[in-house]
Amino acid sequence: MPIKWLQSSTSNAWLEQALANPIEVLIDHAHCERKAAGAAIQLMFRYLCEPGLAEALSPLAREELDHFERVLLILISRGHYLKPLPSPPYGASLAKQIRKTEPFRMLDSFLVAGLIEARSHERMTLLASHSPDRELSRLYKDLLGSEARHSCLYWKLADERFPREGIVRRLVELSSFEAKILTDLHPEPRIHS
Amino acid sequence: MPIKWLQSSTSNAWLEQALANPIEVLIDHAHCERKAAGAAIQLMFRYLCEPGLAEALSPLAREELDHFERVLLILISRGHYLKPLPSPPYGASLAKQIRKTEPFRMLDSFLVAGLIEARSHERMTLLASHSPDRELSRLYKDLLGSEARHSCLYWKLADERFPREGIVRRLVELSSFEAKILTDLHPEPRIHS
Repeated sequence: MPIKWLQSSTSNAWLEQALANPIEVLIDHAHCERKAAGAAIQLMFRYLCEPGLAEALSPLAREELDHFERVLLILISRGHYLKPLPSPPYGASLAKQIRKTEPFRMLDSFLVAGLIEARSHERMTLLASHSPDRELSRLYKDLLGSEARHSCLYWKLADERFPREGIVRRLVELSSFEAKILTDLHPEPRIHS
Repeated sequence: MPIKWLQSSTSNAWLEQALANPIEVLIDHAHCERKAAGAAIQLMFRYLCEPGLAEALSPLAREELDHFERVLLILISRGHYLKPLPSPPYGASLAKQIRKTEPFRMLDSFLVAGLIEARSHERMTLLASHSPDRELSRLYKDLLGSEARHSCLYWKLADERFPREGIVRRLVELSSFEAKILTDLHPEPRIHS
């Protein structure tokens, strides 16, 4: 990655909680992929006239949907399906950090999306290494590279449009906030608990 | 198709208007593909626990995005890009026909989506046959089959969940309304003007 996104490493407590609840984490993972696709499409729509954006975000949204389908198939093959899960405060807390006025809103949107992808990458790497379930370990191994690629893509979208120094300064603020949110383990197992 | 979706044929006036404004129709077409992807993802989200739905709608959304990208590439290659276009009243008027209570809301959502796909199929068939621009004629020819497949898919989603007689009765009402909306040609060239 061109830059260090994360200021903290995931705790053992998170990993233990996730490994003890593989199906709930899978369902949450499916939601994350679907939400990531929706967020990319929303960004495309908000910045309709911004050259280079739709060309990058539409393939990303397709890839998120492809992963959603892959996770869903595993759930179905194990006798489960999607269900509503209360979200941890992670995504909403980060979204609140996005400034309301342009061009800061665009920059923050890219950085928050990139941070979430970077955290997903870090956690899927842990799940790929530690899951005793070979099918799930393989799934996470297959998907984690895309998470890293997506955070690079959001970095690139920011870097093409904003001065480097300003991006780095804002990223340090946001990633510090991101690390703080994760200090307390959410009571329920989630990709971003 | 398993059923006759459309109660009217597109007028020559529409075809002439569309052929005279190929770039504006292309931009509108890109919007239609993006909106169709968004609508499919919204349906997946609304009926999260409905077995068989996400498995069908997620690949459909991916395909719409793929078409969006293809149209966008042609626009870019011709020196154009996306831009906001005032929508014709078609989509919003049809959406208003969707009943508010379940299970009617679900049935109507499938039928309205299927109708829009069927109309797109009819109009792309006309554009494929009549466009003097070979690249555009080829584009529409390549995409029109998917529009037909998508309307079949929405039919199937309805047919798997609702009694056939009730579906047909409601479809006749909705398609009669759809034909009525298109009686007056919208002043601006659009896929659904």
